[in-house]
Amino acid sequence: MSGDKITVGRYLFKRLHELGVRGVHGVPGDFNLATLDILPEAGLEWVGNCNELNAGYAADGYARVKGISALVTTFGVGELSAIAAVAGAYSEHVPLVHVVGVPNTAAQKNGLLLHHTLGNGDFQAFEEMYRKITVSSTHLRDPARAAEDIDRVLETCYIESRPVYIALPTDVALTEIHSEPLKKKLRTEVKDNNQEYEEEVISEILKMIYSSKDTVILVDACAIRHRVLEELHKLVKTTGFTTFVTPMGKGAVSENLPEFGGVYIGDASRPEVQKRMEQAECVLYVGGLQSDFNTAGFTFRITAAKTVEFHSDHMKIRNATYPFMHMKPLMRTLLPRIEKSKIPPQPSTKSVTNEKPSPPANPQEDPNNGTEITHAYLWPKFGNYLKEDDIVCTETGTANFGIIESVFPAGVTLLSQVLWGSIGYSVGCCQGAALAAKELWEEGGKVITTGPEKAHVKNRRVILWVGDGSLQLTAQEISTMIRLGLSPTIFVINNNGYTIERRIHGLHEKYNDIQPWNLKHLLPLFSPEEGKSKYLSCKDRKELEHVLFDEGEDTLNDGKEGVIKLVEVFMPQMDVPRALGMTADATAKLNKRMLGK
Amino acid sequence: MSGDKITVGRYLFKRLHELGVRGVHGVPGDFNLATLDILPEAGLEWVGNCNELNAGYAADGYARVKGISALVTTFGVGELSAIAAVAGAYSEHVPLVHVVGVPNTAAQKNGLLLHHTLGNGDFQAFEEMYRKITVSSTHLRDPARAAEDIDRVLETCYIESRPVYIALPTDVALTEIHSEPLKKKLRTEVKDNNQEYEEEVISEILKMIYSSKDTVILVDACAIRHRVLEELHKLVKTTGFTTFVTPMGKGAVSENLPEFGGVYIGDASRPEVQKRMEQAECVLYVGGLQSDFNTAGFTFRITAAKTVEFHSDHMKIRNATYPFMHMKPLMRTLLPRIEKSKIPPQPSTKSVTNEKPSPPANPQEDPNNGTEITHAYLWPKFGNYLKEDDIVCTETGTANFGIIESVFPAGVTLLSQVLWGSIGYSVGCCQGAALAAKELWEEGGKVITTGPEKAHVKNRRVILWVGDGSLQLTAQEISTMIRLGLSPTIFVINNNGYTIERRIHGLHEKYNDIQPWNLKHLLPLFSPEEGKSKYLSCKDRKELEHVLFDEGEDTLNDGKEGVIKLVEVFMPQMDVPRALGMTADATAKLNKRMLGK
Repeated sequence: MSGDKITVGRYLFKRLHELGVRGVHGVPGDFNLATLDILPEAGLEWVGNCNELNAGYAADGYARVKGISALVTTFGVGELSAIAAVAGAYSEHVPLVHVVGVPNTAAQKNGLLLHHTLGNGDFQAFEEMYRKITVSSTHLRDPARAAEDIDRVLETCYIESRPVYIALPTDVALTEIHSEPLKKKLRTEVKDNNQEYEEEVISEILKMIYSSKDTVILVDACAIRHRVLEELHKLVKTTGFTTFVTPMGKGAVSENLPEFGGVYIGDASRPEVQKRMEQAECVLYVGGLQSDFNTAGFTFRITAAKTVEFHSDHMKIRNATYPFMHMKPLMRTLLPRIEKSKIPPQPSTKSVTNEKPSPPANPQEDPNNGTEITHAYLWPKFGNYLKEDDIVCTETGTANFGIIESVFPAGVTLLSQVLWGSIGYSVGCCQGAALAAKELWEEGGKVITTGPEKAHVKNRRVILWVGDGSLQLTAQEISTMIRLGLSPTIFVINNNGYTIERRIHGLHEKYNDIQPWNLKHLLPLFSPEEGKSKYLSCKDRKELEHVLFDEGEDTLNDGKEGVIKLVEVFMPQMDVPRALGMTADATAKLNKRMLGK
Repeated sequence: MSGDKITVGRYLFKRLHELGVRGVHGVPGDFNLATLDILPEAGLEWVGNCNELNAGYAADGYARVKGISALVTTFGVGELSAIAAVAGAYSEHVPLVHVVGVPNTAAQKNGLLLHHTLGNGDFQAFEEMYRKITVSSTHLRDPARAAEDIDRVLETCYIESRPVYIALPTDVALTEIHSEPLKKKLRTEVKDNNQEYEEEVISEILKMIYSSKDTVILVDACAIRHRVLEELHKLVKTTGFTTFVTPMGKGAVSENLPEFGGVYIGDASRPEVQKRMEQAECVLYVGGLQSDFNTAGFTFRITAAKTVEFHSDHMKIRNATYPFMHMKPLMRTLLPRIEKSKIPPQPSTKSVTNEKPSPPANPQEDPNNGTEITHAYLWPKFGNYLKEDDIVCTETGTANFGIIESVFPAGVTLLSQVLWGSIGYSVGCCQGAALAAKELWEEGGKVITTGPEKAHVKNRRVILWVGDGSLQLTAQEISTMIRLGLSPTIFVINNNGYTIERRIHGLHEKYNDIQPWNLKHLLPLFSPEEGKSKYLSCKDRKELEHVLFDEGEDTLNDGKEGVIKLVEVFMPQMDVPRALGMTADATAKLNKRMLGK
């Protein structure tokens, strides 16, 4: 083999660049410092987070907006500090490349008693832990195999849309290898399905939709994660079927499409939505992920007998499973085969899309009256504040459930962690998402997580909703936003502690209390430039509406660019969104269920 | 079996109470909420940290002061967020009981798609990860075996002085079992050694010290962790041998004993110390842990041929290893057998204990001149500020190396993480240590981590030294200190970023920079009571000495109780303590060492 030489570290970073990574999240440590030197050579930028867990959350948020992300930490202390975030990316199908700077190969071979080790000479322990939460991994001990290993791991990350782990010894990072393999692009396309299987599945699907007088589409998390939004959009437009989303699928379908029916969340759905969804004769369920919090405590009532499930690793028709099939190529083959004329007339979508908000959690409460900022009042109102192509990050807790009641303009991206549900996630996620949005704007890249793929949008607003309890876990990452010149709007729900947990158990218990913070000091702590930060507070509805919809210095609409804003929203301690109330009751019941009963 | 019944949760907590735990660290989550209800019944108090990693660090600090600690987190998200802290406790031999609230047994058996899971029905993944960093674990699936399993795991934790893992399903926590086993106390004493082995070892040791004209004692980390300080103190007094400590052993021996010779850290020692240590004819090396940062980059020169190594799981005499022996019972048998008259005359300790501070890292610098707060100036000066029985927490970075140059009054406890070296550790550690000290004072318990065991000390001061970079990882835990009414003094070294890493690699690189914080806002953010917090800043030596040694409102000596203080100390960006300079050079060299060379 001839040709140019390149260091292993640079090879890796050039591949990451090829996949669309620009900002690299992480925290420096002495086993990755030399590697960080190489970033600029490959066109990458170091973010430099406050800690590794936050860096992991940020990388997760970045990947959800940009398609893939990279996280660099140091051996032991660094990688373990990030492991909860990477596990979240695994759980929620987010492609994240975790590069760990590890001690040089000689030190490992000799079992040296280095700092950041367990002191027992075991240099494998951490990567073995990571095997449970990654789809592929490699320890780049042998430079001769490095290029091939890197390519294999990165392709798996992208195609399976889940995290991978790469251990990079300090010496190997700087060892030169042939750059030849770089000439061949990485494979990012899903492989075609077995044609015979695919024919059988398509024929079954066509039979079902040609005979059903009421077919609906239900869109869930994996439709977003496994990148079938373009195909999905075509499916909706081709068939005209009424289309619902789950909480984790919200944002996957433009909510101003005439076919959009609303959010289905089992017993916590609006009654019209639940009725229509559960009466349907046939359900095309795309990217399903029926976790407890995504189904209001396992209250989905979609019988297998009428359902086609589209997944990234199998298809299911009624009770028959077809393994090793990916929904993306399948949909591509299916779409041109659908003959609209053969689909029987379907009920109108209009019956489910009246503009009435959901009934409040407390039936006594009329969301249109009162001065307190209740959830039943807040979320429909927040929907009115949203603009096309906004990115909204919501925290596990009341916000994740409340956002269901906000009607989205076209192109709004919702980022949340409904399955993994780690509190504090949203703050890191917001940093990563805001950076990704900025990069896409600067690069003129495509927006890939919403509706049909479309050209990049200038200056997307990034909005975070986090609770006062969750904020305390990861608050310092707002410092990184300021450092990078990002200016999201951060709404903090001040309801005196962990309300979601109060609702599950321990309504008045001390363990659900938190130390109240004086949030006026939060942005100033991080030394923003003069005039580049703002604190606003809303104690009642009038103040909130002023902040959201009026113009002026003491509102969000001050006509200035690049100002990071924190809005503290005071809400009643025990008030929760309706869907959370129902899910919490189901969860409390499940947690209490006795042994063997 | 007859007798009273008790829930499994309460049984566990009563056992923790028996071992001395009072404050329980952690973060609530819905799989541990019902368990938290039981804490008060067992006489335990919930701390409620800001996040799980910090809770783990705090539990580590608490255990180092109080002997053992408990950490309660929730399944998946919670336990993984804490895993880096528990790994640190494993690495550094700290007994910490990690109780994880996990989904009920029925939900696990049915593989339900619950929040906080990986979404693949695998409920074992996390406890399997924990096996690598704990010495014992149990998943309390079967209430009938729970008492026995709890006892076994807790005894192992205490005796092996390392973390253990207990998974407690929500239903089992509330299931009743017989309370009978509680009548028998847990075993916390180390078992006697095999008598034949012990005789052989003792006879060899006596032979060595009776023939050596220059024997020294070297005390390291595991002497503290494996609780032989009382025996060690007797050994020093009985023999009169000059006694040195390593960085991780600092504080184990009272520094005003006439036998105390100083800190040995290989090539980074004061020249007199290094000479005496390396010329000794015989070394009694107690609790050795020769990690890179504890030995200034593997520069200890203590040949095996003249050394007796005392460990918790073996003894080593010259090159012969005696497995399965514990130094504690061995020392107890050894002590009365030593006949002082048979020990040859020894050189005086005085030759190594001149009061000269170490030479500065930069030989041009005279620590006695100048106005800048350099490390060579700072640490001896800080030693003068210390009082008997203070607890000092130092952060990985410049502080861990600088503290070597502070001479300690009697009874000072030093808490640091020299082996695991996770930045941010010291802030959580300080919270846990301060709580433990407060509890000991209130309970009249014994102080167990310093010198010979002695009765508790009223109102021990807790002092933290952390760098501006490290503080950013875990700053929110200062909120927990304020919530608990703890009032440590927090010194923040402001030197513009990660100086320890600059010294290893990337002197002027952007990745070693941090966002500067305006620390005046830090304490006010956490809403301390009026008058219960104070910010001070020291830009030069005059200001520092005023703050440390003068009296008045703008000093640390304001005569007030219960005031938490943050002192920002501005130091030159590139200045490091001497020992760090030498260790960093060795580390940089090691990191760069090329493949196969």
